[in-house]
Amino acid sequence: MAEASRTSEARRDAVFGRWVVFSPARSRRPTDLKSHNPTGNPSPGPGAGAPKPSCPFCAGRESECAPQIFRVPPDDALPWRIRVIENLYPALRRDIEPPPEPEVVDGEAEAEEQPGELAVRGFGFHDVVIETPRHDVRLWDLGAEGVRDVLLAYAARVRQLREHPAVKYVQVFKNHGASAGASMAHSHSQMLGTPFVPPSVTSRLNCMKEVFDRSGNCSLCEIRSKDTLISETPNFSAIVPFAASYPFEIWIIPQQHLSYFHEIDEDKALDLGSLLKTMLQKLSKQLNDPPFNFMIHSAPFGLSSSCLPYTHWFLQIVPQLSVIGGFELGSGCYINPVLPEDAAKILRELDCST
Amino acid sequence: MAEASRTSEARRDAVFGRWVVFSPARSRRPTDLKSHNPTGNPSPGPGAGAPKPSCPFCAGRESECAPQIFRVPPDDALPWRIRVIENLYPALRRDIEPPPEPEVVDGEAEAEEQPGELAVRGFGFHDVVIETPRHDVRLWDLGAEGVRDVLLAYAARVRQLREHPAVKYVQVFKNHGASAGASMAHSHSQMLGTPFVPPSVTSRLNCMKEVFDRSGNCSLCEIRSKDTLISETPNFSAIVPFAASYPFEIWIIPQQHLSYFHEIDEDKALDLGSLLKTMLQKLSKQLNDPPFNFMIHSAPFGLSSSCLPYTHWFLQIVPQLSVIGGFELGSGCYINPVLPEDAAKILRELDCST
Repeated sequence: MAEASRTSEARRDAVFGRWVVFSPARSRRPTDLKSHNPTGNPSPGPGAGAPKPSCPFCAGRESECAPQIFRVPPDDALPWRIRVIENLYPALRRDIEPPPEPEVVDGEAEAEEQPGELAVRGFGFHDVVIETPRHDVRLWDLGAEGVRDVLLAYAARVRQLREHPAVKYVQVFKNHGASAGASMAHSHSQMLGTPFVPPSVTSRLNCMKEVFDRSGNCSLCEIRSKDTLISETPNFSAIVPFAASYPFEIWIIPQQHLSYFHEIDEDKALDLGSLLKTMLQKLSKQLNDPPFNFMIHSAPFGLSSSCLPYTHWFLQIVPQLSVIGGFELGSGCYINPVLPEDAAKILRELDCST
Repeated sequence: MAEASRTSEARRDAVFGRWVVFSPARSRRPTDLKSHNPTGNPSPGPGAGAPKPSCPFCAGRESECAPQIFRVPPDDALPWRIRVIENLYPALRRDIEPPPEPEVVDGEAEAEEQPGELAVRGFGFHDVVIETPRHDVRLWDLGAEGVRDVLLAYAARVRQLREHPAVKYVQVFKNHGASAGASMAHSHSQMLGTPFVPPSVTSRLNCMKEVFDRSGNCSLCEIRSKDTLISETPNFSAIVPFAASYPFEIWIIPQQHLSYFHEIDEDKALDLGSLLKTMLQKLSKQLNDPPFNFMIHSAPFGLSSSCLPYTHWFLQIVPQLSVIGGFELGSGCYINPVLPEDAAKILRELDCST
């Protein structure tokens, strides 16, 4: 326990209020990208040949992976289309004791609010979603139903993690390309269930609360500008946000006011899957298959009902076109050479049907 | 004015509260690093040959740069050692009208506090500090006096920018290496004077205020752990911070409680110059001349005196050893494979005298 605690620990500092996970095990993980793809453009694309002999995410090499959590379809007699597995090199560890529960006063947890330095055991969950058994298929090569099933797998796993009392938040994300942080080229996503509410989630909720307290409106329900709209479906809008930090950054926002991604149903997941596929196709075509990340921004678990009016989940897609320098690191302010209106117009008019 | 306003604008969003500078001109700037140094390791090192024919920062090519602000020494009859110039491709523009002053109520500016979307003209200052006339000299190749003079040039320029009523903060930073955001290999630093207080500065001040309100102590005065100390001088401590976000991150902190970097005097600047030089030498030796950033974190101008007890300036050095992925982007939480105590021990014991 002492060794596990020392080698995996989460700390918050007293200057920036930032949380950091210390995870020596992460540096031991292998990569099939770094040496082969210094440009950060790993996608082989359809038809490049599969499976890749050394890839543990390919069909037939399941035994080389960490334990499976579930698969789609569940019937082992059928070939799998999606596998949700444990990360073999987890940043947070499910096999150590969770941090003690904060004391609850009047229905609200108090401990989280104490400022200053804090260290907790590196307990948590770090899972991988293998989106396809084929090494040569990218997420947006799947049909809308295929992307829907990946989204439903995310939601199902988030619902499982929500059941653990020590898990405060689940960050779902996808890294595509070495320079976007992917260490494996085979199409996959990840999620981390954390024993704290991450700092960006706290600041996002604080910002949306301030707007709500002043205007009575949810920040994301308010977004109705035609200028930055790329595409709409019955349930979702894809926009370039008003203050996009990155060139061609995209947000996909449910039109209905909903706090939690993991409550998505099959119909909405199909709708989202179709829109996400189109957006990834557009970015790939416009920017020549760029490295990118996407992140699902949802609400922390156990939010009091008074917070629901200003929490609204969305999916953020960030192409990685430039490096971050000292100005961005120091100030938290980004420099973007492309105006959102211009990026939205380009993406809106781009035809991916051919 | 309309064109200038459209092509350079700063915006704050209503979800993350993030500030973004939109600057189409930035994408037109040249680089001597990207094509030649994909690895992000640009330093030629002493003796690699200077000047480089195409480098506008080298002695003799001053006419290819944007206007000079001042030089060291000031006497034009002597060769220059340091030049402070305008950035030819500025993220913020000094030649447009500043945003209107916020209304002042009871001695406190109110407008900054209104939440929600906001756009202001992209007014501001973006300057470059050329640290040496020689293309083959790195900052830490200079003597302690040379680094002192660079620090004093920063401070002198910050004091000039403070005089402008629309400048709320000056971010001083250095990018070294292409993958740390440098577009020029010739040793230089930059500073941006912004018409708003950047988001990381606001959150840093809020965090330090919370600690102070609870404990009565300044977060940085409190740091006294021998575990994470690398080196001390009469006036400064170099540590690996308790919750370092990056492997081998270093903070250099004045031992005296001081809010503003730009008030540094010559003696303290020499002391800091010597310690900064040693830390950059240690990082270069330990990590094989890594790309890195350093940032000076100071207090915003015009802070009320009640804020001074919890604001304490410091210098943060961040080696860029790994890429940022979707977890970090989404959650604001970093994963660091190296424990601060281990990094501090390695750097403390590393001998750079040979």
